[in-house]
Amino acid sequence: MSSLQEQLASRFEQDLSDLIEFLRIPSVSALREHRADMHRAAEWLAAAMRRVGLENVQVIETPGHPIVYADWIRDANKPTALIYGHYDVQPVDPLDLWESPPFEPEVRQGRIYARGASDDKGQVMVHLAALGALLACYGELPVNVRVLIEGEEEVGSPSLEPFLQERPDLVSADFVVISDTSMFAPGLPTLCTGLRGIAAVELHVTTAATDLHSGLYGGAAPNALQVLAQLIAASKDDQGRVAVPGFYDRVIEPTPRERQAYAALPFNEKELLERLELGGWDGEPGYTPFERMTVRPTFEVNGMWGGFLGEGSKTVIPREAHAKITCRLVAGQDPEEVVRLLTAHFQRLCPPYARVEVTPGHGARPWKADLEHPALQAAIRALQRTFGKDVALAPTGGSIPVVESFDRLLRVPCVLMGFADPDSNAHAPNERFSVETFRVAREAVALFWQEAARDGLKS
Amino acid sequence: MSSLQEQLASRFEQDLSDLIEFLRIPSVSALREHRADMHRAAEWLAAAMRRVGLENVQVIETPGHPIVYADWIRDANKPTALIYGHYDVQPVDPLDLWESPPFEPEVRQGRIYARGASDDKGQVMVHLAALGALLACYGELPVNVRVLIEGEEEVGSPSLEPFLQERPDLVSADFVVISDTSMFAPGLPTLCTGLRGIAAVELHVTTAATDLHSGLYGGAAPNALQVLAQLIAASKDDQGRVAVPGFYDRVIEPTPRERQAYAALPFNEKELLERLELGGWDGEPGYTPFERMTVRPTFEVNGMWGGFLGEGSKTVIPREAHAKITCRLVAGQDPEEVVRLLTAHFQRLCPPYARVEVTPGHGARPWKADLEHPALQAAIRALQRTFGKDVALAPTGGSIPVVESFDRLLRVPCVLMGFADPDSNAHAPNERFSVETFRVAREAVALFWQEAARDGLKS
Repeated sequence: MSSLQEQLASRFEQDLSDLIEFLRIPSVSALREHRADMHRAAEWLAAAMRRVGLENVQVIETPGHPIVYADWIRDANKPTALIYGHYDVQPVDPLDLWESPPFEPEVRQGRIYARGASDDKGQVMVHLAALGALLACYGELPVNVRVLIEGEEEVGSPSLEPFLQERPDLVSADFVVISDTSMFAPGLPTLCTGLRGIAAVELHVTTAATDLHSGLYGGAAPNALQVLAQLIAASKDDQGRVAVPGFYDRVIEPTPRERQAYAALPFNEKELLERLELGGWDGEPGYTPFERMTVRPTFEVNGMWGGFLGEGSKTVIPREAHAKITCRLVAGQDPEEVVRLLTAHFQRLCPPYARVEVTPGHGARPWKADLEHPALQAAIRALQRTFGKDVALAPTGGSIPVVESFDRLLRVPCVLMGFADPDSNAHAPNERFSVETFRVAREAVALFWQEAARDGLKS
Repeated sequence: MSSLQEQLASRFEQDLSDLIEFLRIPSVSALREHRADMHRAAEWLAAAMRRVGLENVQVIETPGHPIVYADWIRDANKPTALIYGHYDVQPVDPLDLWESPPFEPEVRQGRIYARGASDDKGQVMVHLAALGALLACYGELPVNVRVLIEGEEEVGSPSLEPFLQERPDLVSADFVVISDTSMFAPGLPTLCTGLRGIAAVELHVTTAATDLHSGLYGGAAPNALQVLAQLIAASKDDQGRVAVPGFYDRVIEPTPRERQAYAALPFNEKELLERLELGGWDGEPGYTPFERMTVRPTFEVNGMWGGFLGEGSKTVIPREAHAKITCRLVAGQDPEEVVRLLTAHFQRLCPPYARVEVTPGHGARPWKADLEHPALQAAIRALQRTFGKDVALAPTGGSIPVVESFDRLLRVPCVLMGFADPDSNAHAPNERFSVETFRVAREAVALFWQEAARDGLKS
């Protein structure tokens, strides 16, 4: 065992208990009532950065939630890496489906259960732990690092791009490292080779000045919920294809070679169907379920509501109805164009007796990795050696808008080295993170910095 | 001016202030948190009955909300009338659309604004006021009366039928009088000649064990909201007809003569469109908007929800989605059969990857008046004389399930003598009741009792 491995082993209990402390803070960025918790999480993180030996630690206010920054920069001849992560988490509802409270972390059968365990507090703490061990072991890091942990990833990172543009002194780097994705199978080291983009809209339908008595006016007065249901239903065809005109026009099809590689990944359809308790797959014909979930675009209703939602019965014709919709985008698609297509589609289908309003939400372009880049190659070596397995090179269907921002604004490669469990339940009840992965990932990341230094990635 | 008219005039201010006091009690039967208010309203009503001189006043507990009963029975040779009304009201949401708080009654431009002003507290108080004036003027009533005011009309009257069956001693009568409908035009005396029935269901769609991350699984995992939207959309055709197979099979078409009479009613389409701020009519082709709203059956979504409804964005694929649906039924249709048709329709359309559950709610059969009956004829004379206008004989699209219960269980005629404003906003924000109608209706009702006595309606 190397002295670095010994160092990591001796620090494991403390690293785990630090993570558990971090997970106790309910840093839900989407909900106003958690504003104070967001600051608490940022300050906790800043203190943790100081503890591991990072320097220049700052909690930087933004118009939204603060960004936490630290660095360790010594040698201008060595490459500089920017580590990105986020300390905000998704809302927790439906709360009644959690087996233990989302902000009271509990270890069961080798996994930590808590909101944010995988997405992304657990993975942020892997990085702090690796840097802490390297500094404790050698008194220095093999490369220069900046650590930038934001608090708005789950709400579309509105403050990050301005920050990247306004503070080149804090974000200039030779490459970016992000751990916010999943491993392809339990214990299988994985680099993410592609991400979907996203285009979000809210759809509002109005039909009358007030809710109306369904007895007095039902049969002739328009019903906003009926109109909304028709608009949503008409957005997919009978086969599961998105039926928004123009939606697929700019989509770049996966190449036959890419499709072959996807087919070779250890993707277990049946296991996934069973685990998610699905009655079957939905979606676009002509593509495998894996392809539909990673390299094909989607139309998804995330929330819908209108009329009387309370207990019992209220016989109204609702005057308004609402839906939250997101589309996942793939190479070739542009979020602003997709919002325009959605808006035109809903306006065209809206019957003459109703009004439709489409409000654009956050958007992000899709992204693809450059597998030939030395930073990616260093990552492949480090992961392979630590986990003792070939690295899965796999696209994922999620969107990390910031990857696209880094790509576009910093013009440097991104290494997406994800450690979340494949069944992490990110964004859902009972989110979790493997304790064993947490332990091993710290070593993989530490080794990656050593490999990256050896490759001399200075741009 | 007769002495009865003088009596009514002198009592007007007090009658109005009694009504306002009654309207202050938020007796929302559908919401558990108003349970205590329901009892408060029942006790208030019992006290008001004692004040006007009714006897045998009782607040009778039921498994739900109490029934308030009183009578004045002297002469076995005179006919006995049962006056029915309800003291419960609809929920008030959306609260932000009320111009004054729903339970702080306010008189503006000759109308009382409050939840329950028209439906049905205002009309209940018309009856108490008329009985009070008759008793004060003559020391007796021209007929025997029973007054039965329930607290569950807005939730389908679950306790009323058992009460009618278990307490023949309190409900036996020669005819029933109900004031819970509207006047056809402002100040136009109206008898309701038909009511639609109702069949209520809740529709529940489930697609997975938990909500899923729309990035990781979107494109292949089924979305419960998408399925729900498809089921709702498929329940109407492009023309606005209900597309549930078998739905129209037993509907009795209105006769050409009935359709002629409907066409002659002073129904102002344009005014109604403008007042409700509708962009146009929806619904079944081949029928006038008036017919669609009164003598044609409907399919109406009253509420729909699923997924993330909070502030901001949450990119989930919802595992469950829900809708509250009611159908209005017309002559020939049976609520239990319509529930079966809806259930079969949703089950048949449900895709293989989803599960659908249909929960039946309350139901009521449609009803038609017997215009030749002497009680109806007495009502026509009293209304004509008091308002000085021909009485409109009009069907209404609402459902008063209790009318069907009285029809079926007591087997006596019902007189539906409604005084609500045509634009009363019942079940909607800014519900109101004309102060002038309240004043005149008291006289019409008092005269009706005198006419009814003259006709000797003893069965």
